[in-house]
Amino acid sequence: MSYLTEVKWDKNGLVPAVSQDFASGKVLTLAWMNEDALKATVAEGRVVYWSRSRKSLWRKGEQSGFIQKVRELRIDCDGDSILLIVELTEPIACHTGRATCFYKRYQADSWLVTEPVIKDPTDIY
Amino acid sequence: MSYLTEVKWDKNGLVPAVSQDFASGKVLTLAWMNEDALKATVAEGRVVYWSRSRKSLWRKGEQSGFIQKVRELRIDCDGDSILLIVELTEPIACHTGRATCFYKRYQADSWLVTEPVIKDPTDIY
Repeated sequence: MSYLTEVKWDKNGLVPAVSQDFASGKVLTLAWMNEDALKATVAEGRVVYWSRSRKSLWRKGEQSGFIQKVRELRIDCDGDSILLIVELTEPIACHTGRATCFYKRYQADSWLVTEPVIKDPTDIY
Repeated sequence: MSYLTEVKWDKNGLVPAVSQDFASGKVLTLAWMNEDALKATVAEGRVVYWSRSRKSLWRKGEQSGFIQKVRELRIDCDGDSILLIVELTEPIACHTGRATCFYKRYQADSWLVTEPVIKDPTDIY
């Protein structure tokens, strides 16, 4: 599959993959893919990462049910990072129950939480 | 500076940093920051990365003049990646003269170029 040869995997066989909500434009999550994760994402049309902590494929939403359908899969000029433009079943991408993992904003030498919890994580997992 | 202690640098002292155009919502670039780059970004209010190839601070736009003013600086739930929401002087973020580095889209087992060259790179650098 020729698209795989253009990806410049790092020495651990990974590339960072950023997801963006097609509807809101919000940047959601930065996670990682290996070759198997990218192949599964293409084959299944949904976001599949490689979990570095669990050392296994991580089908986004496998526990929460909030799967992310891939609308566009993009690669950057250097071939060493991936952009996933996704459609959400629920507007929640973070394990904290927030819309995005990037919910803390720099202000006055600290990080302020700026996004509300939409759903209590104990009700999700 | 307390904001620095919340960042989980990798074993090379880096975190991935994604930039997004405030005006268009486009995801522009994925690059890297070390502590000095993050401090410089905060101090100067513009995007400063760490160039892994040159092993030096990389003030985005230092050659092209297309600096990126930081409107929001965000960190994710795990503290191991950064989101920069930026204002552009020109709508060009990629060294190829395109709006975004993510200009290749997966289609039928290959990557198709979907974004035009706005300005010839030989006129930029």
